[in-house]
Amino acid sequence: MRIEIVVFDGFDEIDVFGPFEALSSAGFQVALAAVERPGVVVSMRGVSLNVSAVLGEADGVVVPGGGWLNHAEEGSWAQAQRKVLPNRLVELAPNTRWLASVCTGTMLLATAGLLTGRHATTNHNAFDELAPHVAEVIDERVVDDGDRITAGGLTAGLDLGLWITERELGSERADQVSRSMEYERQGRVWHAPKRR
Amino acid sequence: MRIEIVVFDGFDEIDVFGPFEALSSAGFQVALAAVERPGVVVSMRGVSLNVSAVLGEADGVVVPGGGWLNHAEEGSWAQAQRKVLPNRLVELAPNTRWLASVCTGTMLLATAGLLTGRHATTNHNAFDELAPHVAEVIDERVVDDGDRITAGGLTAGLDLGLWITERELGSERADQVSRSMEYERQGRVWHAPKRR
Repeated sequence: MRIEIVVFDGFDEIDVFGPFEALSSAGFQVALAAVERPGVVVSMRGVSLNVSAVLGEADGVVVPGGGWLNHAEEGSWAQAQRKVLPNRLVELAPNTRWLASVCTGTMLLATAGLLTGRHATTNHNAFDELAPHVAEVIDERVVDDGDRITAGGLTAGLDLGLWITERELGSERADQVSRSMEYERQGRVWHAPKRR
Repeated sequence: MRIEIVVFDGFDEIDVFGPFEALSSAGFQVALAAVERPGVVVSMRGVSLNVSAVLGEADGVVVPGGGWLNHAEEGSWAQAQRKVLPNRLVELAPNTRWLASVCTGTMLLATAGLLTGRHATTNHNAFDELAPHVAEVIDERVVDDGDRITAGGLTAGLDLGLWITERELGSERADQVSRSMEYERQGRVWHAPKRR
């Protein structure tokens, strides 16, 4: 199973490297993937990455946040304005096992219309902004609505990675990864009732 | 206050980006710093970074792990064999407020003789290897022995960053950062008795 974590200028570092560590440790094939073309991507705080993969070959996609709340010139808000990434996610959605997000990466899915009628979560400071785009904002660490899996702010990406591991590979594997990362899972995972 | 997080080929991603996020969020000036010269550094799982800073201008230094336990060709074990980074840390120690480590980054400090007579921690799987180099291995999340501050495996770097924030800027600031990262601190911080 191949998982792509999208990176764009202005992404928040832990939104990417939290799930990256958990999902890689679980044994998934994990790639950082640029939106349109390979090249240099610079994080919110100036970390410069050489990215060779491009979004589009994944079984699962993780969308990080960064720069939404302050409408930063580069970041998830800027990506929503530019439309390239949202349009790409809409194209990919039908052929992808799931789309996931961390922090205000959820707002990118939401404004693309990909969370309409769904339950979802995001950074606590973006709850009000998320509400009009979804059926219900759920105040939990990870919200699993089937083919959309969203997580709270920043470090919630670690729990997203562990939950995806549990969902795909079972709870024993997720517990192993959690131990190997010396991380005790925080918060709870909410499931869509219709999937149970 | 300037904090340098050393990066070398084979570093473990979360060892670097855990403390990076916490310390940056706290308002410290944080730089990823190469060992000898600026250039490309590739992490344990192939993330390629363009690093412009070089170790040597910091008030505090954080050393990550990665690749120690399996003696990987690149990583903290390889850095210990090559001696360049350990020698540099020995040179810098007297003029640095503190040296800190995450995971098997502690083994780099230890084998450089920088933890002799000290209390320290590391990845749980390296406790036996650490023991001969220190006064006592302490099984806690973060161990503060004054000018040496060590953390457990991987995600313990988040708590290291929050503890350094608390130590330098106070517990209120650390609590703010913890909340903003949506991270509940895990484990405990051990202090050297002589500092109390």
